[in-house]
Amino acid sequence: MRGVIMHSPGEVRVVDRDDPTIIEPTDAIIRITATCVCGSDLWPSRGADTVDNLLLGHEYVGIVEQIGADVTTIKPGDFVVGSFVTSDNTCEICTAGYQSRCIHAQFVHGSIGTQAEYARIPHADGTLVATPGQPDPDLIPSLLTASDVLGTGWFAAVAAEVGPGKTVAVVGDGAVGLLGILAAHQLGASRIIAMSRHKDRQALAVEFGATDIVEERGEAGVARIKELTGGLGAHSVIEAVGTQESMMQAIRSTRPGGHIGYVGVSHGVDLPGGELFFSAVHLHGGPAPVRRFLPELIDLIWKREINPGRVFDMTLPLEDAAEAYRAMDERRAIKVLLEP
Amino acid sequence: MRGVIMHSPGEVRVVDRDDPTIIEPTDAIIRITATCVCGSDLWPSRGADTVDNLLLGHEYVGIVEQIGADVTTIKPGDFVVGSFVTSDNTCEICTAGYQSRCIHAQFVHGSIGTQAEYARIPHADGTLVATPGQPDPDLIPSLLTASDVLGTGWFAAVAAEVGPGKTVAVVGDGAVGLLGILAAHQLGASRIIAMSRHKDRQALAVEFGATDIVEERGEAGVARIKELTGGLGAHSVIEAVGTQESMMQAIRSTRPGGHIGYVGVSHGVDLPGGELFFSAVHLHGGPAPVRRFLPELIDLIWKREINPGRVFDMTLPLEDAAEAYRAMDERRAIKVLLEP
Repeated sequence: MRGVIMHSPGEVRVVDRDDPTIIEPTDAIIRITATCVCGSDLWPSRGADTVDNLLLGHEYVGIVEQIGADVTTIKPGDFVVGSFVTSDNTCEICTAGYQSRCIHAQFVHGSIGTQAEYARIPHADGTLVATPGQPDPDLIPSLLTASDVLGTGWFAAVAAEVGPGKTVAVVGDGAVGLLGILAAHQLGASRIIAMSRHKDRQALAVEFGATDIVEERGEAGVARIKELTGGLGAHSVIEAVGTQESMMQAIRSTRPGGHIGYVGVSHGVDLPGGELFFSAVHLHGGPAPVRRFLPELIDLIWKREINPGRVFDMTLPLEDAAEAYRAMDERRAIKVLLEP
Repeated sequence: MRGVIMHSPGEVRVVDRDDPTIIEPTDAIIRITATCVCGSDLWPSRGADTVDNLLLGHEYVGIVEQIGADVTTIKPGDFVVGSFVTSDNTCEICTAGYQSRCIHAQFVHGSIGTQAEYARIPHADGTLVATPGQPDPDLIPSLLTASDVLGTGWFAAVAAEVGPGKTVAVVGDGAVGLLGILAAHQLGASRIIAMSRHKDRQALAVEFGATDIVEERGEAGVARIKELTGGLGAHSVIEAVGTQESMMQAIRSTRPGGHIGYVGVSHGVDLPGGELFFSAVHLHGGPAPVRRFLPELIDLIWKREINPGRVFDMTLPLEDAAEAYRAMDERRAIKVLLEP
């Protein structure tokens, strides 16, 4: 089969890879219908991580081709959405809702690589969720977002304890930040402040439910959030970038006792203990337990109550993966869907 | 009046200070019945903070001498317990339960100094709570703990979401850690692991409700907590020290999705963002909003359901404050009560 790898930092190649086969009785093989490029995929291309023929891609929807002997909840022919981290969904950590830290968790990125024609998904029962039937083609982009960026934005909003009566600030206007806005809107937030300086992303933010746009960043951005919240800061802040600046912007934009949901994969972040202590905020985040939310998100998409697939503003064949990475890195695209 | 100051790092003196007077109509003047030395008071004596005739003491119980024209909930003669941070208890931050970050918050430490015969308490209605009557003398130490260490340990347990079915680990065996154990027990924790290597403190930990003692620290301590929790870590961890080592011990002892309540005042702490991210823990803490818990804690003490005053293992006259600081710094005493 064909699959995408990063040969060395920044060098994305589409190469021949062995077709996956069932190894464990809990595995499933799926034929990938759609996959995409994630903001976190760009980090290795910037030299931030070590890279040696890295298997790329961790977002995926597809059709079950084959299942292991112990798989019971999905069957060949089912259309499935899976999490970017595998999970058994039965251990004590999973049942508490933290499937991304399952005792059997495996990051799809690097180990499986779903920017490919096929993928072997371990712990298929605990990782994949079948849709109620074969989806209309226009639903596929939205279902694909549930695999990571929607699930991650949703988790960020839940971690930030978004709800009715709350003012929410969102740091980061990539796909996750934008879908954090959508989640905050669905969860009933009273006011949603999007921090963005890109017109196209501002427009999508408003479409997803943002009530205010703040273009300032850093200390000026914090000052603006304070101005909009009676000097106190937001009740809930979603952090969807992962840098020192964005984390400090999130902490300083939150009122005492408020909640930060942070889902931007941390790169080079060191949180000053003293400032964090006296801020009196709640901090929660990490790799989103997407599997917790998949049934609910699939349902909302299936009923066309949400349209998160709007974050895709470019679609390319899998063979053009290198161009997809470039387009996102150069901010020519918010998010690129790849068709194997 | 007589009052305690730190003249320069480590040099504690008892000096003559002006008697306080009513300045604002929301003030009250109280005659201090009992005060004490806090673990956090030791930091300046170690050269960790700048010091220049610092007014010492922030824990206090006493009798109201005089009230300003706007004070309505307490009257002269009342026995009162106050928080170590003043608060109006009416602003939006206070009503959300974060009185220690009230828009009118003032730290008693440094600005008022309750290791003294009298103190002016601003925002008396929002800071002080009267007891149901004059307390029996044996209740005074316990009521004094409510002013900070009990309220802080209680907040840590609440922040760590302690409750029935939960396993709780407590990092730090000072008065706050020990009273965190008492709080965890009151809040119904199923298992409470005290991390302590001092026999006298271990004994008090057990008296307060600890079910297990772990003597190891650092990585060995984390390994022991994992061993005791099926490899997963504790559901809830109370951090009551404030150093890099103690914070990392707390984070690493918590299971994914678990909760850390940290109340040790941070000194030189930098939290590594990447490790915190992948830990998937909840982190919440800061200066405890003691005022939130005062009515409930006074009630529990008044009914003799808890006996937090047990943390005092030395009582000295105010004039011997320097010896009180030395005894705590040298760990000859867990906590020293001072009688003006």
